[in-house]
Amino acid sequence: MGGVVNAAAYAGGHKVRDISVSEIGDVLRQPDQFVWIGVQEPDEALLQSLQQAFGLHDLAVEDALRAHQRPKLEEYGDSLFVVLRTAQLAGDGDGSGRVAFGETHIFVGPRYVLSVRHGPSVSYTEVRARCESTPSLLRKGPGFVLYAIMDFVVDHYFPIVDSLEEKLEGIEQEIFGGSFRPEMTERIYNLKRDLLALKRAVSPLMEVCNRLVRYDVALIPEDTRPYFRDVYDHVIRINETVDTLRELLTSALEANLSLISVAQNEVTKKLAGWAAIIAVPTMVAGIYGMNFHHMPELDWRYGYPAVIGVTLAICGALYASFRRSGWL
Amino acid sequence: MGGVVNAAAYAGGHKVRDISVSEIGDVLRQPDQFVWIGVQEPDEALLQSLQQAFGLHDLAVEDALRAHQRPKLEEYGDSLFVVLRTAQLAGDGDGSGRVAFGETHIFVGPRYVLSVRHGPSVSYTEVRARCESTPSLLRKGPGFVLYAIMDFVVDHYFPIVDSLEEKLEGIEQEIFGGSFRPEMTERIYNLKRDLLALKRAVSPLMEVCNRLVRYDVALIPEDTRPYFRDVYDHVIRINETVDTLRELLTSALEANLSLISVAQNEVTKKLAGWAAIIAVPTMVAGIYGMNFHHMPELDWRYGYPAVIGVTLAICGALYASFRRSGWL
Amino acid sequence: MGGVVNAAAYAGGHKVRDISVSEIGDVLRQPDQFVWIGVQEPDEALLQSLQQAFGLHDLAVEDALRAHQRPKLEEYGDSLFVVLRTAQLAGDGDGSGRVAFGETHIFVGPRYVLSVRHGPSVSYTEVRARCESTPSLLRKGPGFVLYAIMDFVVDHYFPIVDSLEEKLEGIEQEIFGGSFRPEMTERIYNLKRDLLALKRAVSPLMEVCNRLVRYDVALIPEDTRPYFRDVYDHVIRINETVDTLRELLTSALEANLSLISVAQNEVTKKLAGWAAIIAVPTMVAGIYGMNFHHMPELDWRYGYPAVIGVTLAICGALYASFRRSGWL
Amino acid sequence: MGGVVNAAAYAGGHKVRDISVSEIGDVLRQPDQFVWIGVQEPDEALLQSLQQAFGLHDLAVEDALRAHQRPKLEEYGDSLFVVLRTAQLAGDGDGSGRVAFGETHIFVGPRYVLSVRHGPSVSYTEVRARCESTPSLLRKGPGFVLYAIMDFVVDHYFPIVDSLEEKLEGIEQEIFGGSFRPEMTERIYNLKRDLLALKRAVSPLMEVCNRLVRYDVALIPEDTRPYFRDVYDHVIRINETVDTLRELLTSALEANLSLISVAQNEVTKKLAGWAAIIAVPTMVAGIYGMNFHHMPELDWRYGYPAVIGVTLAICGALYASFRRSGWL
Amino acid sequence: MGGVVNAAAYAGGHKVRDISVSEIGDVLRQPDQFVWIGVQEPDEALLQSLQQAFGLHDLAVEDALRAHQRPKLEEYGDSLFVVLRTAQLAGDGDGSGRVAFGETHIFVGPRYVLSVRHGPSVSYTEVRARCESTPSLLRKGPGFVLYAIMDFVVDHYFPIVDSLEEKLEGIEQEIFGGSFRPEMTERIYNLKRDLLALKRAVSPLMEVCNRLVRYDVALIPEDTRPYFRDVYDHVIRINETVDTLRELLTSALEANLSLISVAQNEVTKKLAGWAAIIAVPTMVAGIYGMNFHHMPELDWRYGYPAVIGVTLAICGALYASFRRSGWL
Repeated sequence: MGGVVNAAAYAGGHKVRDISVSEIGDVLRQPDQFVWIGVQEPDEALLQSLQQAFGLHDLAVEDALRAHQRPKLEEYGDSLFVVLRTAQLAGDGDGSGRVAFGETHIFVGPRYVLSVRHGPSVSYTEVRARCESTPSLLRKGPGFVLYAIMDFVVDHYFPIVDSLEEKLEGIEQEIFGGSFRPEMTERIYNLKRDLLALKRAVSPLMEVCNRLVRYDVALIPEDTRPYFRDVYDHVIRINETVDTLRELLTSALEANLSLISVAQNEVTKKLAGWAAIIAVPTMVAGIYGMNFHHMPELDWRYGYPAVIGVTLAICGALYASFRRSGWL
Repeated sequence: MGGVVNAAAYAGGHKVRDISVSEIGDVLRQPDQFVWIGVQEPDEALLQSLQQAFGLHDLAVEDALRAHQRPKLEEYGDSLFVVLRTAQLAGDGDGSGRVAFGETHIFVGPRYVLSVRHGPSVSYTEVRARCESTPSLLRKGPGFVLYAIMDFVVDHYFPIVDSLEEKLEGIEQEIFGGSFRPEMTERIYNLKRDLLALKRAVSPLMEVCNRLVRYDVALIPEDTRPYFRDVYDHVIRINETVDTLRELLTSALEANLSLISVAQNEVTKKLAGWAAIIAVPTMVAGIYGMNFHHMPELDWRYGYPAVIGVTLAICGALYASFRRSGWL
Repeated sequence: MGGVVNAAAYAGGHKVRDISVSEIGDVLRQPDQFVWIGVQEPDEALLQSLQQAFGLHDLAVEDALRAHQRPKLEEYGDSLFVVLRTAQLAGDGDGSGRVAFGETHIFVGPRYVLSVRHGPSVSYTEVRARCESTPSLLRKGPGFVLYAIMDFVVDHYFPIVDSLEEKLEGIEQEIFGGSFRPEMTERIYNLKRDLLALKRAVSPLMEVCNRLVRYDVALIPEDTRPYFRDVYDHVIRINETVDTLRELLTSALEANLSLISVAQNEVTKKLAGWAAIIAVPTMVAGIYGMNFHHMPELDWRYGYPAVIGVTLAICGALYASFRRSGWL
Repeated sequence: MGGVVNAAAYAGGHKVRDISVSEIGDVLRQPDQFVWIGVQEPDEALLQSLQQAFGLHDLAVEDALRAHQRPKLEEYGDSLFVVLRTAQLAGDGDGSGRVAFGETHIFVGPRYVLSVRHGPSVSYTEVRARCESTPSLLRKGPGFVLYAIMDFVVDHYFPIVDSLEEKLEGIEQEIFGGSFRPEMTERIYNLKRDLLALKRAVSPLMEVCNRLVRYDVALIPEDTRPYFRDVYDHVIRINETVDTLRELLTSALEANLSLISVAQNEVTKKLAGWAAIIAVPTMVAGIYGMNFHHMPELDWRYGYPAVIGVTLAICGALYASFRRSGWL
Repeated sequence: MGGVVNAAAYAGGHKVRDISVSEIGDVLRQPDQFVWIGVQEPDEALLQSLQQAFGLHDLAVEDALRAHQRPKLEEYGDSLFVVLRTAQLAGDGDGSGRVAFGETHIFVGPRYVLSVRHGPSVSYTEVRARCESTPSLLRKGPGFVLYAIMDFVVDHYFPIVDSLEEKLEGIEQEIFGGSFRPEMTERIYNLKRDLLALKRAVSPLMEVCNRLVRYDVALIPEDTRPYFRDVYDHVIRINETVDTLRELLTSALEANLSLISVAQNEVTKKLAGWAAIIAVPTMVAGIYGMNFHHMPELDWRYGYPAVIGVTLAICGALYASFRRSGWL
């Protein structure tokens, strides 16, 4: 399944031609061209030939092979190694799906861009097409390609944040709509889990972008920096939204607990109320069920209906009084 | 509905004349004049003509078109791009309304100020009138206009903070007044939501103002900085109040939970007390309802009233004892 | 009620003479003298004449007129503007009072000190007397007067912190003494409120003092700095105590909740225990109250006392067993 | 049990020969060789002879003797003293074991590496073998050996973090699977304890690694720094995972409490429901057990079945209604 | 009780002779000697004579007289003023005692060390003896004496931290051992209080030590700094342990609450179960206690034993079913 997805040489903002891995050396010998290669879940052999072609550092290649890195930016001499986490909504887009994370590793040198994808992630063919359609920007070189990929990855976080916001709203509606169900606790927990995972993917990007904005290297030309600042701004916004969602989720959990407690209180009150109302006739009946020989009421002609009547009246009074005090 | 709301050229602290978008070029050719244009929810065409007239950066214009930005300050060459969030109380001012947020984007260059409003927000006509009435200040140029708009936006936060404080006070009174109602939990939650939204609008302004106070650029003259420091001070105050409100709200929620717990305890105690009092005559009646042939008490002349009397005495003693120990 | 409280010219550490506002100009013309004026809740006219006499900045005067500022330190050219919050225990000093806050605004220039008091606060006449009694220190000039006022204000926080500590101790004693009362929750909440308000008054002072300690301006002579460091140290101590109190209060609230929960558990256990004990004779009596024709026990000579005896024995055994297991 | 585990001289990336402690001086006289000694729980005498051989500082040696240090990096002249905490899963690897911590102290000078192990920890023989198999790296000298040991120690944290993650997953499954058991609280608490202990072992390493990455000393050659950056990256990842686990654990605890509260509510509801259903026939039976002389129903031919029937119908209706409202 | 505890002149690492306060001037005139004086709870007169002898600053002397300072380090010209909090376990060392805090104020100048003790604290005679027994270190002068006292004070924190750890372990054992007692809440609270107090004593020391390590003054010779770094390291360790204890204590409190909640749930379940079991025979007996003339069962020969048998069977079935479902 893995292997090279796309490989091409670019010059002056335009694609020169598609190339194979073995032709990389030829392109790098042309001083005005750069190579952009995208590979997916490469095997060790492919990565080694790419390492030799571009002169990549052992440690970076090891990272790219193993995956499971956190987002980061590392400098190796005059080249950069960037790790991004890509996010996708698993499931059928009905808002019930969990978030799945993949990884993209990007090697950027003065004359090449190499992107390595792992796990679930959208292909960057769309990014390539977009770049090729704006030669004035693509002309800025590998630095701009790095921006284009990062922008693409970060833009894909927005629908995920939106879906998490919708989930929170769904939880709020159920909590305050009174239809509490025990599985809600699990939904809240899973949402928190997704938020934490998203936070771990996004928050290290803040430092990555910040450093790219401030970098004073030939790889990131002066006029490319506002673009990275734009990505930085998006990352901050996502991060902030995730934080707000987490705080609201905590409040929702507390509100939930508080409402459960109130509901429990209501049940206890009702239990107490009805128990008192039913206990009265039971007690009265017990009294007139005693076998004393001398109980004048028992001989009365209307003793029975009188007792029933008085008992009903007491129960009615209790009911009305409990109703007023809010117990029933 | 959108479009240019106001456009005028200024020189030496006084309005020269109202202008149309097509006349901007003419004004900019006069070295001693500057343009102040206010537009509301502009379409793409209008923004593009303004972009060409002032030479605005693609990324800033894209932000101004899309809205949904967080408050920020960006430098593009010798011009500034400022995003503010405006806040308004929705509803009829009776304190029950939620807070609605809009956005204002301000482009400031050495010779122009362009404000773009999105969503619910008050018109800046009042700001313009106030500036025009103090020529000594307006003479300081576009930097001062930026201050005037920011000051206006920030001043509009105060009534909102006041209304949120009033809401908290209402909640406190109900909690400690003993009249607990389940919908309170929802009110607390909504108040928290509003506070978080306000916090997101205000707290990034702290960095914006702080940078404006420290800026060493021609756009913000030396003697304008105390004004930005004043805005900064207001922002810190609002921010601090919001933080205090959030902390108090958390405490109110906890107090609420604690009082519910206590109330529940009271109910359980009362239930236990009355159950015990009623159980005694029921048990006694049951005993004298047994059908043993040899139960001497049943033949006694005053057995019945004696049993009733003794039972009543026991119940009374229980009642008094529960009363003393605080169970009833 | 408002107006000038005290106004005098000083030279070489000694008071020269009391002056009126109109004489300020005369004093400032003497190069070796400085003016110290204290006003309380001034009207606009008074502030304007003082502004003209000392050349104060518009924004600072506006702040001093409006009050409701947070503690801060602002530089305007070679003069300083300091805002302090003063605190006083309202009520009759029996520890039950709430804390009331006032404001003091201090304008300090090379040749003048102007203090403006708002709201409840002690007069600074005492500070003036103390300064006048130590000419060697007062000779240091307006910077030292600023220290003296700040030291006075900060020293007045200590009795308030002490009173809040006493309140916490009272709450602890009631919580752990077992005498829980519902109004305790409100007391805890109000104490938290006071602590937050005190925190807001004190914590910005840390930055104010820190800047004064580090200032390298003629206004604060080198040998005055240890004095500001001393105030700084007091502020840190108050701040730390307030933080500790807040954390202890949170723990007290949790302990409170935990003890309520335990108490509730006790009640439930007791309820369960007594219900079981009373249910046994009720059930037995019910059985021997059945009307079957063939119930041999009913004919026994000692059936009745035997049943009563056995039932009492069972109840006694239950009671003893519940007692052992801690349910009763 | 303690003593020298391994001691050898190295030159040009290859082992020259195994040496004894007394031969250290000979090796150090050869300018191109360095010594690598590993000792385990040394006694004071051994440490003193090593101190004299390498010229170690009193304070560092005292630390190495006493153990119970926190991870740290200290410079003594041109040599470094590094303390690491090693972690191992106690028990039989079935995921139920607790984490046991040991300590490794490393003295690194321009010409020597001395590692001192305390408590449970794996031998570094494997590290030595790995280094000896890559002479190109070992040639970098003692700085690289320091990296190799740190990398080895940090890599041993990963299986522990994995086991703690599995424990959390086990807890989640039990909580949301409904099979709550009281010992869960203890498991959650112990997991939190292990996480805190791991955090204390790992988080100080962040600063240690960060300083090693930035060090500009001959001991850490320029081309060794990316390796320390790699360790730094691993440490950050472990630290982040531990933080996430702690936050999830807190949420799991809250979810647990919430579900217990809900379960309690269910029990109370069921109790109330069944109590009401059973109370009805008891009350009815009591009424018809009264001994009034004039109770017409008692003489009816089908009074008994009618009453039983009506009572059953009422109970059935109550049951159905409680079922609908979710009480039963 | 107060007064001078010890006073001596030192030269070249050795004690020259014991001196009295009045002889200080003589010693200071010898350029190669320094004075080390220890006083305990001095009165104002003693402090004034010491102030004159050493030329101490008014503010520092005032602090030393009043006590109740927080740990701090202040520079006055070329001398230092250090405040430490000393801690001791009150009570009889059986782990039940509370922590008592004292204060030590140290004035260090190029030629003198003056330590002032307040409240409960061990005498520094031991420190003096230890210093006098290592002349090679004491020769470093007053800076080393400062280290020796700080090291002594900090080392006395370790047994206190250990005793607090033991208290936490005792609490854990009781919580998870199931023997919950209400006074536990108070113990948890008191432990938290002690931890907060210890934190307040220790955490400011971090900054004090850090500054001493970095100081570039003649008072702290270059080769004394590793010693202060050692103290710094101890302080960090104590601080970290206190933080961990606080976090574990919070978790223990939550675990406690959770277990109380579970126990309550158990009680409610048991109550519900037994109530249901006992309610059945009561209801059945009630039914056969009705006085209907036509109740065929009453005339059956074996009606009574049959009803008792059926009832017992139902109760047994209920008991078995509740047992299975974990209610009993």
